[in-house]
Amino acid sequence: MQIKTDLLMNRDNYHSRIPEPALRRLPWYLSYVKLLKKQGYSKVSSTQIAKKINVSATQIAKDLSYVNVSGKTRVGYDIDRLIEVLDDFLGFKRMHTAVLFGVGSLGAALLSDSGLEQYGLKIRAGFDVDASIVGQKINNIPVFHSDEFVLRNKKIEAQIGVLTVPPDIAQEVADFMIEGGIEAIWNFTPFRIRVPEHIVLQNTSLYAHLAVMFNRLVKEE
Amino acid sequence: MQIKTDLLMNRDNYHSRIPEPALRRLPWYLSYVKLLKKQGYSKVSSTQIAKKINVSATQIAKDLSYVNVSGKTRVGYDIDRLIEVLDDFLGFKRMHTAVLFGVGSLGAALLSDSGLEQYGLKIRAGFDVDASIVGQKINNIPVFHSDEFVLRNKKIEAQIGVLTVPPDIAQEVADFMIEGGIEAIWNFTPFRIRVPEHIVLQNTSLYAHLAVMFNRLVKEE
Repeated sequence: MQIKTDLLMNRDNYHSRIPEPALRRLPWYLSYVKLLKKQGYSKVSSTQIAKKINVSATQIAKDLSYVNVSGKTRVGYDIDRLIEVLDDFLGFKRMHTAVLFGVGSLGAALLSDSGLEQYGLKIRAGFDVDASIVGQKINNIPVFHSDEFVLRNKKIEAQIGVLTVPPDIAQEVADFMIEGGIEAIWNFTPFRIRVPEHIVLQNTSLYAHLAVMFNRLVKEE
Repeated sequence: MQIKTDLLMNRDNYHSRIPEPALRRLPWYLSYVKLLKKQGYSKVSSTQIAKKINVSATQIAKDLSYVNVSGKTRVGYDIDRLIEVLDDFLGFKRMHTAVLFGVGSLGAALLSDSGLEQYGLKIRAGFDVDASIVGQKINNIPVFHSDEFVLRNKKIEAQIGVLTVPPDIAQEVADFMIEGGIEAIWNFTPFRIRVPEHIVLQNTSLYAHLAVMFNRLVKEE
């Protein structure tokens, strides 16, 4: 019954219904069905996806029930339709405007990564206080002085702020971004910043992932 | 009683005892106590850390019980000691040798990010099949043809392989890395690769994180 209710609610406001773990699995399915398409397939069942990915067929069918696509018994999902719907649902087809704070080593690397654009993230400007980098361009993206952010963002209208500053100023810079109109922060620092409830926060700590990997390696030895 | 047992086991083999969620929180504490040190503090209690980070003081004390450090009642933890022990436990102070497969946009960006080295990851070489990049250097790291990997890795002896190839060849390249002696794979592709049980796998899908952020932004609107 719970599932039925969820599906009914989906129709009106399907974006708000999907739990985060399901949402995180959708890009795996998308990636796999894109591969199948490349290999010439046109249909796929949840059982086939399950064979390749460590998720049960039932779970996959349930996850896919959150997006606006339905499989046919004994035929499965239409691959083209599934790719289209997943790309759209995940937001990869709409361009989201972002700015980046902290054009250090990681920040500059992210500015150089044109791949993000293919997934719907367009970084329009970098901000830093270091005179040696302010005024430069990286991958054709201008780097401005942080003091100019509020003014510049009136024109850029970025919704998303990528945070790659040193951890000890992460909170301060996050507050500053929010004041300037940022609605979502992608935090790459290992610092646990706090944001008001209406602000979206996504933590991606590469260093925490490194630590887990190092720790597991020691265990294996 | 459970905690007591864990502590006793810690003494012999503390690396294998810590659950992943606790392990993932340790870098947050490290980052915060480093900030406190910079601000001139020398002692910190779990209650103080809890005030800054969305984790309860009890949980923090429990997490820290996995590492070889103990706080004193009414005084707290010695900050210098805590930094030293956490840096060591998380593996950030030992250099881990890595290679990277797929010197595309994200791969090249990661090679350029010297910050990883500060956290114990030294990427010694990139591998690709694209003639326009093979033979180049990025951030002084040489890029070799993938065919040379097995031979090159006899000298490099990399334990860790960073995977930034296109998703449709992710599995194939992962298998190839493992054949060449790689023990841990840091998978940045959205593809769910499968590895033998003795291989450490860490998935970091920036695109999945983007999708979660985009989805939450839509919800807020």
